[in-house]
Amino acid sequence: MANIGKNLRPFFTMSSTPTAQYADFAQYKEQRTALINRDRSLRADHSRKAVSEAEAKADKIVRELRSSEAVSIWGADHDGIPHPFPGMEFLTGRSIILKTKLFKILAKMPKGALLHAHLDATVNAEFVLKIALEYPALHVRTTEPLSALNITKILPEFRALPKDAFATSGVGLTDASYSSNTWVPLQKARMDFDPTFGGPEGFDKWVIGCLTINPSEAYRTHNTVNKIWEKFTSTFVASTGLIHYSPLWNRYIYEFFRSSVEDGVSYIEVRINFHTKYMLGEDGQEIIGHREWLQIFDEVQNRFKADLKRQGREDEFIGARIIYSTLRFISSEELDWFCEECLALKQEFPHLIAGFDLVGPENEWKPLIYYAESLLRFRERQKELGLEIPFILHAGETLGDGTEADVNLYDAILLGTLRIGHGFSLVKHPKLMETCREKNILIEVCPISNEILRLTSSMLMHPLPILMNNGLPVALCSDDPAVFGNMGLTFDFYQVLVASEVTGLIALGELARDSLQHSTLHPAEKQQAIAAWERRWVRFVELIVEA
Amino acid sequence: MANIGKNLRPFFTMSSTPTAQYADFAQYKEQRTALINRDRSLRADHSRKAVSEAEAKADKIVRELRSSEAVSIWGADHDGIPHPFPGMEFLTGRSIILKTKLFKILAKMPKGALLHAHLDATVNAEFVLKIALEYPALHVRTTEPLSALNITKILPEFRALPKDAFATSGVGLTDASYSSNTWVPLQKARMDFDPTFGGPEGFDKWVIGCLTINPSEAYRTHNTVNKIWEKFTSTFVASTGLIHYSPLWNRYIYEFFRSSVEDGVSYIEVRINFHTKYMLGEDGQEIIGHREWLQIFDEVQNRFKADLKRQGREDEFIGARIIYSTLRFISSEELDWFCEECLALKQEFPHLIAGFDLVGPENEWKPLIYYAESLLRFRERQKELGLEIPFILHAGETLGDGTEADVNLYDAILLGTLRIGHGFSLVKHPKLMETCREKNILIEVCPISNEILRLTSSMLMHPLPILMNNGLPVALCSDDPAVFGNMGLTFDFYQVLVASEVTGLIALGELARDSLQHSTLHPAEKQQAIAAWERRWVRFVELIVEA
Repeated sequence: MANIGKNLRPFFTMSSTPTAQYADFAQYKEQRTALINRDRSLRADHSRKAVSEAEAKADKIVRELRSSEAVSIWGADHDGIPHPFPGMEFLTGRSIILKTKLFKILAKMPKGALLHAHLDATVNAEFVLKIALEYPALHVRTTEPLSALNITKILPEFRALPKDAFATSGVGLTDASYSSNTWVPLQKARMDFDPTFGGPEGFDKWVIGCLTINPSEAYRTHNTVNKIWEKFTSTFVASTGLIHYSPLWNRYIYEFFRSSVEDGVSYIEVRINFHTKYMLGEDGQEIIGHREWLQIFDEVQNRFKADLKRQGREDEFIGARIIYSTLRFISSEELDWFCEECLALKQEFPHLIAGFDLVGPENEWKPLIYYAESLLRFRERQKELGLEIPFILHAGETLGDGTEADVNLYDAILLGTLRIGHGFSLVKHPKLMETCREKNILIEVCPISNEILRLTSSMLMHPLPILMNNGLPVALCSDDPAVFGNMGLTFDFYQVLVASEVTGLIALGELARDSLQHSTLHPAEKQQAIAAWERRWVRFVELIVEA
Repeated sequence: MANIGKNLRPFFTMSSTPTAQYADFAQYKEQRTALINRDRSLRADHSRKAVSEAEAKADKIVRELRSSEAVSIWGADHDGIPHPFPGMEFLTGRSIILKTKLFKILAKMPKGALLHAHLDATVNAEFVLKIALEYPALHVRTTEPLSALNITKILPEFRALPKDAFATSGVGLTDASYSSNTWVPLQKARMDFDPTFGGPEGFDKWVIGCLTINPSEAYRTHNTVNKIWEKFTSTFVASTGLIHYSPLWNRYIYEFFRSSVEDGVSYIEVRINFHTKYMLGEDGQEIIGHREWLQIFDEVQNRFKADLKRQGREDEFIGARIIYSTLRFISSEELDWFCEECLALKQEFPHLIAGFDLVGPENEWKPLIYYAESLLRFRERQKELGLEIPFILHAGETLGDGTEADVNLYDAILLGTLRIGHGFSLVKHPKLMETCREKNILIEVCPISNEILRLTSSMLMHPLPILMNNGLPVALCSDDPAVFGNMGLTFDFYQVLVASEVTGLIALGELARDSLQHSTLHPAEKQQAIAAWERRWVRFVELIVEA
């Protein structure tokens, strides 16, 4: 026992009570104001030099509306929602949010860039099913006939089949004589869905239920991070057979752009998971490889831009780029393959490849340190080839303290990540917070995703204010809106706004601006994008003031 | 629109990507270790100069046990608990915690000081009811006869009656003919409790239910901060008539000391709520004022110390002092009265009065700024009288961001608070965190209380690691163990230990040491208290190593 008395910190006695004397109460109040200002001085909205008169007015209007709706809407009775409050669980509170005027205002806000979303989960599931039904090649099967006992557990598997393999006879999925794993045409499966399960509408409900997370799953049956991730992952397993069919993918991407722009998003950097090496072509037979994925992405983007231009709306969309991603369970040798492919794609599509990431449940899969050596080699390869593909890594999407997922934050930063995906546990790390502020590393915060995946119980517990008050650049992101139902960015902005009395319209504007400033756009493009955003921001502010 | 372009922060382009080059992977790993160490350098356990060999061994044993029990106990099936995990909701997980060897080890740990607890909620409710039944003077009444419909909603009201007012006839509370608000002797009320409601045991269950919070209340019916506070407050309303009866209060305090020492607590600073001006004496008639409360407290303490001494255990208890408290809904004129009383009591019982606080639901009642002028006057009065009664203020026990309860933190600090009660929202305030670190202001963290009162969903979401990693002094506290079921400090230490991979035995020791260092003990007493704690710590460490 070597240390008795050695490590006593200085005694703290009453005579050293931290006090300050005030000449009078006015002086106390002065010092109080000064302290509050000092405490908030790192915030983006606080350090802003100039706020226009119109902005100040609009900010006040928004704050008053937030206060009044906290009572008039959130304080009212809502069927089946026992304790509504602003910032509550999104899946339960969504219908109430839609009733607010504040939401309608925010829907019109120019949001800047969407920097963190996974392409396969960006388009409304109902839309996907609706267009899928237009393709006779699309079939569905299950591992056993659907029954009252298993319907909530069995996932549909979708696939486009070549014409000669179309199922022309056979029974539907709910028929007791359905033979396991037999393909049924999507339309037929829908029409034959047993009336006990709601008939065709019941089919839609079942499929949508498999592609999304509902409140009871998130807040009751799967109410822990690991459990809800199982359900979350299953939605991707189910949707992949629909989305990875090139004619549908084509329309999917268009709809993603269209709905994002509709919501005020003017630029996109979307993660595409290249772990699956190909998708099926229109005929259900042709193999569509990654090069062609990018060609389609490019073609859709050009078409969408042309469509906007025809409507005189080119200011509303700067473009979309891709963060090349693979999954965090592969071996480091496999990673080398993906890195090489990414380099090749960057050479062919320099304007499309924006960065590189590894995705998947951090609490369960491999930590970044496992890949660190490969990733450093990847950087060397970029130098050799004169390319620049910044890491834009997920890290710290966890409740763990000192767990592998939490420790990923050190590696992401040491590997030189441009931004951090989630960074939920970053607030626990004083030196990393400092580093992010100094090196201007933006945190891609996904408020609703974090809440549904049970990292936080409601927006009130979310660590976002800690990031903002520490002056870290932040962008709000939707992550997987198709699964969570937070299409666009309005819902995320809404949740953030109502969960804080400090954050107002000016802060939301800074978040939007940050998203563009921390994109991978080249300086000239970026300046243009921000200038376009500024023009729209002024109109938005005027709209609020004049309403 | 004056600000277009003016407040653009510097563009962040890819060429300024934050990178660092590494000669080889070994160098990367070196820098990684250095970064992790730098990030943790402010932690009390990290900055400790010397860790004995035995401590290092014990720490390892505890970490291994934590890992193995995370699987063997937390990974096993437990009836009625769908998703058990370490750090889970306390009221649901309590029975699992009791099965762990880790808990049994921590029960033996010397905990240092208990710095944040409210006297009226410190003794096991079953014990209170059991001894209450010994006093014929104690009566109970309800506002209507208890029925299946209202039994979960109606609170008992208890009171000691003078002998000539004893109820000698009449029916029990569950009798349909029970006349509203009629006093029934406690024993009779228990014996006459209708068998439909479980008879006498049903009575006990009903009373205990009114004095405590159960899992379904915390995690289902009242699952928001404001709702659960209503239930929480009601437990005090119910218990006051039992506790504020001097013979019972006497035994209550003794049991509080006894059970605390049993759990390894060696010093106590307890908040007593002096808002009620008196309690009833043994005969149910005599008025017992605040002076006599302190006399009883002193007498019980002396008796308890003498009892310990007889057993040769005087090392185990340094003593107990009182943080004079009143409620945060009074007017500032009323506060002046309490301050004057506190000064008078401090003059008469200088060894007992440790500090001053205002308590109650911060989200609902008056903010500190409302009282600030009175509190500054109180400080002047102390100077005039040559007294020192430090503020030890509740502040920031809230999920609010910029709300009055959150803003209380600025006032607590500006008023010179010695410690902060809860400080749950402190982590949002970079300058206040800095101030607390520099001025050595300890945060009284109440992990289980915060979780049951729904500030955090589980220990995994609790901001404690942020405080620890930022080098703020922290003490773990039980707050209201009688209501929450976290008697002693072992449960709180357990929850903290299993929710982090960073925190180990050394960190827990530092928390215990901090609690003594930040007490209001005078330097000599403090040094003695810490030396006694060190001796017990060494024995505790040996116990782990030798087991």
